[in-house]
Amino acid sequence: MHVFYTPDIGSDVYVLNEEESRHCTRVLRLGTGAVVYLIDGIGGLYKAEITGETKRQVNLRIIEVQKEYHKRRHYLHIAVAPTKNIDRLEWFLEKATEIGIEEITPVICDRSERKVVKEDRLNKVITAAVKQSLQAYHPRLNPQISLSAFLKQKNDSLKMIAHCVDAAARQYISDVVKPAGSYTILIGPEGDFTGQEIEMALQSGYKPLTLGNTRLRTETAALAACFEVNYLNR
Amino acid sequence: MHVFYTPDIGSDVYVLNEEESRHCTRVLRLGTGAVVYLIDGIGGLYKAEITGETKRQVNLRIIEVQKEYHKRRHYLHIAVAPTKNIDRLEWFLEKATEIGIEEITPVICDRSERKVVKEDRLNKVITAAVKQSLQAYHPRLNPQISLSAFLKQKNDSLKMIAHCVDAAARQYISDVVKPAGSYTILIGPEGDFTGQEIEMALQSGYKPLTLGNTRLRTETAALAACFEVNYLNR
Repeated sequence: MHVFYTPDIGSDVYVLNEEESRHCTRVLRLGTGAVVYLIDGIGGLYKAEITGETKRQVNLRIIEVQKEYHKRRHYLHIAVAPTKNIDRLEWFLEKATEIGIEEITPVICDRSERKVVKEDRLNKVITAAVKQSLQAYHPRLNPQISLSAFLKQKNDSLKMIAHCVDAAARQYISDVVKPAGSYTILIGPEGDFTGQEIEMALQSGYKPLTLGNTRLRTETAALAACFEVNYLNR
Repeated sequence: MHVFYTPDIGSDVYVLNEEESRHCTRVLRLGTGAVVYLIDGIGGLYKAEITGETKRQVNLRIIEVQKEYHKRRHYLHIAVAPTKNIDRLEWFLEKATEIGIEEITPVICDRSERKVVKEDRLNKVITAAVKQSLQAYHPRLNPQISLSAFLKQKNDSLKMIAHCVDAAARQYISDVVKPAGSYTILIGPEGDFTGQEIEMALQSGYKPLTLGNTRLRTETAALAACFEVNYLNR
């Protein structure tokens, strides 16, 4: 099953760009009559047939359309501190896309050793996972932002912050999440949020979360939250 | 918090081996009086004090012992086909250790592109995760085995096989798992199990599982199963 990401698809015909045309004809060795699948990133899954090809251009005709393919009834936004080793953040993006996530924001915290992420690179990772796991919805990656600025943004979803500071107040996601909701979950950097950051978040209406009694790495904590929210919305 | 893995710990004193002694004195720059933690891999978490050190030898005195530290009430064994790219299997081992797993068996299937795994290397990954996530129990890694041989082994746990062949019979883990049980979950290779392999497993008493309606990579499916079992046993 060959999948192409085609956010600019409009009519019942489509022309693959030069890079993807080369991939289609040279790597996949596909020719006229072959069937491929297109994803528009906003819920559309298209079955298409190759009607003609050159090395540089592959013409497709849409033969079947599914809208709102595997649409989820909830909306999950995870704001996570980029990991020092960027592979760990990229790994999270790939896995979260497979499991189910709508929006990701890299937040820079006081203890963040990494202060900069390459948005293009991270988006490529997400797009690859979208195609591989056949997600018709492309998760949205926001530009990086400081935690303090992020907390000031208008946000009407159910807001939660996972941290490791022992406090009886912390609850499990399953204690606070109701199905079919919209959620924002904050995940801190290696070394956790500072007490001041947690205080700021609580004052901004974030509910304190625990993800269990084991020490989880940043990217594992973020994925654990992603798993639990999707499980509760199954 | 400095943690050492010391499966051979016996009395109320312990001597770090040369490699770990060097790490302790050279890298961590710890000296007499410093406090470190030791994990025996079978549930024991030890608080210890350095009573003397040379470059090659660090002497420790145990000052506090916790047995059955974070003991789980369930037992999870995941038998997973090694991924073509070994990094993905190693990644699963690290994450499963963080989340909670008791036993792992690499099973070689008909569609396995990788037929061989390096046990030592995989065990190093597990041990590193054990220390990093402060797990007092070291997951057990079994030697690789063919699926057919694995299915012939005596196994009294609740047995499940996750596969992607559409069949109304497939259930969610949450439909079949009762808390505080012992479970074995089979996860197939890229390209899934063959129909014949699934049939063999069902005849061996394995219940067919679905992990949801998204296409998951082998290592993602294995971790999803690990998350769900731990969630259901929280």
